[in-house]
Amino acid sequence: MIVVMKQSHTDEDIEKVKEKAIQQGHEPLVINGVERSVVAVSGKVNDDHRAVMKLLPNVSRVIPVGKPYKLASKNYKKKNSIIQIQNLTIGGDEIAIIAGPDSAETQEQTIETAMAAKDAGSNGLRGGAFKPRTSPYSFQGLGEDGLKMLKEASEITSLPLFSEIMDAQHLSMMEKYVDVLQIGARNMQNFKLLEAVGESELPVLLKRGMSATLDELLLASEYILSRGNENVMLCERGIRTYETATRNTFDINAIPFLKQNSHLPVIADPSHATGDNTLVEPVALAAIAAGADGLLIEIHPRPEEALCDGPQALLPSELETLISKASIVAKAVGRSL
Amino acid sequence: MIVVMKQSHTDEDIEKVKEKAIQQGHEPLVINGVERSVVAVSGKVNDDHRAVMKLLPNVSRVIPVGKPYKLASKNYKKKNSIIQIQNLTIGGDEIAIIAGPDSAETQEQTIETAMAAKDAGSNGLRGGAFKPRTSPYSFQGLGEDGLKMLKEASEITSLPLFSEIMDAQHLSMMEKYVDVLQIGARNMQNFKLLEAVGESELPVLLKRGMSATLDELLLASEYILSRGNENVMLCERGIRTYETATRNTFDINAIPFLKQNSHLPVIADPSHATGDNTLVEPVALAAIAAGADGLLIEIHPRPEEALCDGPQALLPSELETLISKASIVAKAVGRSL
Amino acid sequence: MIVVMKQSHTDEDIEKVKEKAIQQGHEPLVINGVERSVVAVSGKVNDDHRAVMKLLPNVSRVIPVGKPYKLASKNYKKKNSIIQIQNLTIGGDEIAIIAGPDSAETQEQTIETAMAAKDAGSNGLRGGAFKPRTSPYSFQGLGEDGLKMLKEASEITSLPLFSEIMDAQHLSMMEKYVDVLQIGARNMQNFKLLEAVGESELPVLLKRGMSATLDELLLASEYILSRGNENVMLCERGIRTYETATRNTFDINAIPFLKQNSHLPVIADPSHATGDNTLVEPVALAAIAAGADGLLIEIHPRPEEALCDGPQALLPSELETLISKASIVAKAVGRSL
Amino acid sequence: MIVVMKQSHTDEDIEKVKEKAIQQGHEPLVINGVERSVVAVSGKVNDDHRAVMKLLPNVSRVIPVGKPYKLASKNYKKKNSIIQIQNLTIGGDEIAIIAGPDSAETQEQTIETAMAAKDAGSNGLRGGAFKPRTSPYSFQGLGEDGLKMLKEASEITSLPLFSEIMDAQHLSMMEKYVDVLQIGARNMQNFKLLEAVGESELPVLLKRGMSATLDELLLASEYILSRGNENVMLCERGIRTYETATRNTFDINAIPFLKQNSHLPVIADPSHATGDNTLVEPVALAAIAAGADGLLIEIHPRPEEALCDGPQALLPSELETLISKASIVAKAVGRSL
Repeated sequence: MIVVMKQSHTDEDIEKVKEKAIQQGHEPLVINGVERSVVAVSGKVNDDHRAVMKLLPNVSRVIPVGKPYKLASKNYKKKNSIIQIQNLTIGGDEIAIIAGPDSAETQEQTIETAMAAKDAGSNGLRGGAFKPRTSPYSFQGLGEDGLKMLKEASEITSLPLFSEIMDAQHLSMMEKYVDVLQIGARNMQNFKLLEAVGESELPVLLKRGMSATLDELLLASEYILSRGNENVMLCERGIRTYETATRNTFDINAIPFLKQNSHLPVIADPSHATGDNTLVEPVALAAIAAGADGLLIEIHPRPEEALCDGPQALLPSELETLISKASIVAKAVGRSL
Repeated sequence: MIVVMKQSHTDEDIEKVKEKAIQQGHEPLVINGVERSVVAVSGKVNDDHRAVMKLLPNVSRVIPVGKPYKLASKNYKKKNSIIQIQNLTIGGDEIAIIAGPDSAETQEQTIETAMAAKDAGSNGLRGGAFKPRTSPYSFQGLGEDGLKMLKEASEITSLPLFSEIMDAQHLSMMEKYVDVLQIGARNMQNFKLLEAVGESELPVLLKRGMSATLDELLLASEYILSRGNENVMLCERGIRTYETATRNTFDINAIPFLKQNSHLPVIADPSHATGDNTLVEPVALAAIAAGADGLLIEIHPRPEEALCDGPQALLPSELETLISKASIVAKAVGRSL
Repeated sequence: MIVVMKQSHTDEDIEKVKEKAIQQGHEPLVINGVERSVVAVSGKVNDDHRAVMKLLPNVSRVIPVGKPYKLASKNYKKKNSIIQIQNLTIGGDEIAIIAGPDSAETQEQTIETAMAAKDAGSNGLRGGAFKPRTSPYSFQGLGEDGLKMLKEASEITSLPLFSEIMDAQHLSMMEKYVDVLQIGARNMQNFKLLEAVGESELPVLLKRGMSATLDELLLASEYILSRGNENVMLCERGIRTYETATRNTFDINAIPFLKQNSHLPVIADPSHATGDNTLVEPVALAAIAAGADGLLIEIHPRPEEALCDGPQALLPSELETLISKASIVAKAVGRSL
Repeated sequence: MIVVMKQSHTDEDIEKVKEKAIQQGHEPLVINGVERSVVAVSGKVNDDHRAVMKLLPNVSRVIPVGKPYKLASKNYKKKNSIIQIQNLTIGGDEIAIIAGPDSAETQEQTIETAMAAKDAGSNGLRGGAFKPRTSPYSFQGLGEDGLKMLKEASEITSLPLFSEIMDAQHLSMMEKYVDVLQIGARNMQNFKLLEAVGESELPVLLKRGMSATLDELLLASEYILSRGNENVMLCERGIRTYETATRNTFDINAIPFLKQNSHLPVIADPSHATGDNTLVEPVALAAIAAGADGLLIEIHPRPEEALCDGPQALLPSELETLISKASIVAKAVGRSL
């Protein structure tokens, strides 16, 4: 860390910073600049060390030098992580297409949608049984009944199932049905839930929180990785900004940034990032052009009958078109689909 | 809801909107404007009804008319809710000052800080035992041991204890120690946790999420209220914006807005909203001037020894000064302290 | 507009809304819903009409129905606008690549960079002579001398020149040198400047303000269009959000949204949107995949010698690679390059 | 500046950083930390120096150490600046109340409103003749005719006049009528306009841009100060965030932050910061409690007849109430009114 002193500091103030650094087990070095004096402190510095330093007399601010995440970083592991889920490989050359309904609603709709996803060319199945909804008066998902429907649809189509877990207490029950545990945006900093899935054998798809920085997303993944679960996928699903023309703002910069700074696979969710089915295809193609390892896409055979999030669902035929364009874009960036 | 048609719509498109409205149990009325046709749909309309409507052919957008929250609204209950916690009354004329350490660290520090809070004029005690931390490598709180320390400090000072609950499974354990269950910003949309505290007999202090809108905060309170727990306090603790000069941006507008639209008490947390002890006093006074019912303030007898969040802690003597100024501001707005 | 009444309204309040609507030359229609009464007001309603309505007794809020922009909208002109600048066609099938230095620094660097842009496959030249800089102590551009250098570089390469105008008083001088007048993000709502370029014969490239909504961008274009200049290009260059990992957040959703709602061409500026040369290529490809009509890209033969914005400049060889990948992506979305 | 190297750097990379620093006239010092090496570079470092450093091989990032503004800083001038405008003193013990109409509409309304402002206890008059409007179809102000009305109202009431300048070419004309030149939020980074008012003898009220950081606001003031005009007032008028419940988010933290870091007076504009007359009083009182030197408040004798921004205007009687409460709050923080 770099401890920047106020211009009004005394020699004694500098001494206090040095002492505290040594007490923390670090090595201080004083630099007297033209405008400012700073103390460079080397060692394994964490947030709490910096907070303490900030409080010493005439310290102006304290600047972190290293990155706060370790296990998720490219420095820790130079080769990209590849996650194998049955026949689906995520993080390699091939782009994954994980499609399906927003939620399981009926057995029939679930199976019909899963088969349509498969026919259109998907290699993974998404679908929710537990739905985090802003209002307690909205549809909350079918719970375990929904998981049963999704499991059957997954077996019929041989597509591995991605589904959201909302509660650490559901873990062993969820493990009976799903192939990938999804952490939703609202739970990205539900640390008890992150710790729980960190103990699971199943891969985890971790969605970026609505207003999480990329550093915070990587630190959230670190909660899972540090418990021993190495199979974490990051998911960009749009962030909250001042713009209201679309439901969220898809942060396309995030994709190459995450790929450069982490070895974990990066999945894009253009359905939630736009909230509008007419924008899903262009944003999906953009995500692949920017380097995403896969797409999470909502489809529905009859969106106007969906109980939830219909406006962002593609028709199966639209998914098919998207996939055929996506395979050309994938080639342009050295990938296949 | 108001269903706005595209300019290119046909009569048949309008018919479909009308049919769907009737099928949803609502009453449609078509208005042919100069530039646009709209269908006004009356009835008990929810998010899911609107989502479906959005999907019909040539519908441009669907605008909600009513407010999404009910039980939290001033329309539902015109008189301000007053919450009694032992000797502490929140939401009436008197302003509550809930002060204490960020976290319980040692028995000694906890009791010393609680006594200092009391001496300075506080009427509630805050303190964390479970700490949601962005990094898994930061101090995570002492858990149940911390609660025991806080409970003892609360008993010695006769100040009711406010402490954060991070996990629904901790509920019955927490109930043994604390007087008010606090939901942290990161868990504002942890709906399973909201449902759990909705079943508790204890009052709940619900912090606004880092990027939650005021409607979302009120809807989160609705999860608790609708389970039967009427003793909910809302807490403004700063929101995330593009500004980096301060840790968060305290949304002062939120205080009068919430007081006008809801009957629930509103508490301000200037410590987290600024992240800087030199800004705590002015922002605390501002919150009272704007109509807040109470303050949540971090103090520490020796902030530079705090294990966490030291930079935002006031000294006990600074809290005393703050309280004496606050009592004059309170009078200016017809309150006491 | 839809005027939503408070639940406490009286019949008299409704009468006042109706009277005011009629007085404004509009047609009111009262709808008594289950929870709320609303008055739907048809006619050519503007912001000021709505503001007045908001003030009548027991009006809760006023919701706009139509879109605020006219001349820029797809409804006004269904066919995409195509802008011809010498040999460069923008808005048709072909993707435009407008590359060049951030700023003219020396005659030699300017010509060398322009030739490199041309060799790499660009069909337009960008370069600044007037630089809006956050600090008065940063390099401010060479002014008219810079324009002379850029003009010569443009003539040597036969690439039309895009350059920023910062002051309405510079208009006739700028017109001697440049082929396209660029309005920078900081001046998107400098309405006097918009009006001035609205009177020019030259095409205008209008950059989105740092925190402008898409509606505001389109309304800014409306200032130019309504003065008679039909040759306006919109430019997405990243918006300001809470995320600090990159200089700005490129709003990829904006590209298809603008293409769907407006007939004006949309150019992407991945250099400013990322502020980091390692992110320029992936974001540039993403923009084309999402439907952009062109790219604005900073290059520099020796970025470490640039007087300004070097970190986001590509090397000419990197631009060449980008263009070859971009041409495959363009094909995937039915365009050429 | 602190130059942070990538973990993969070589000794040669460090040499290049040192050479470049020396070439820039600065002094480099290498620090080999446990996880990272950094080069601390002392001297008068600006943005452009940092940008160049960022481009050297294996440089990870470059961190500024000093503050980018000089003349506006408390370090440059420790005593608060006090600005005298006729009988009105801004920045001293007394709080200034600058009230008036959003815009001059008619001679009668302007004089009536100014007299009401005076009667309610204001000591400055605000009013616009040039209105920056998002839409070209909204009321744009009366121009010089409006200034004449405002000037007359100012003379009748002996209240000094604050009015917005939108164009550098209007400067000498404006100087005939107004006592303080206001720069609006949309023009905070219209650098040509800042330079122009920097040459004027009149004091300047500089509004914070809609999404400007506090550093950027201070740098904008630096454009004016560095041209020789020392009479600059800063104005917090709300920033743009994701929250839509209010028109803007009033950044209350900004007030104490600016007072701590700059000697310039700070004025609050609760009218634009909330956009809602029911929120103006609480936010105005909050601003004073937080340390503001004055308030800019819109009033209108009949808001529902205002041509622009009526919903945020107070009635004269409401202003009177506000002022009487404000004077008690002022006392609580050691000020008078």
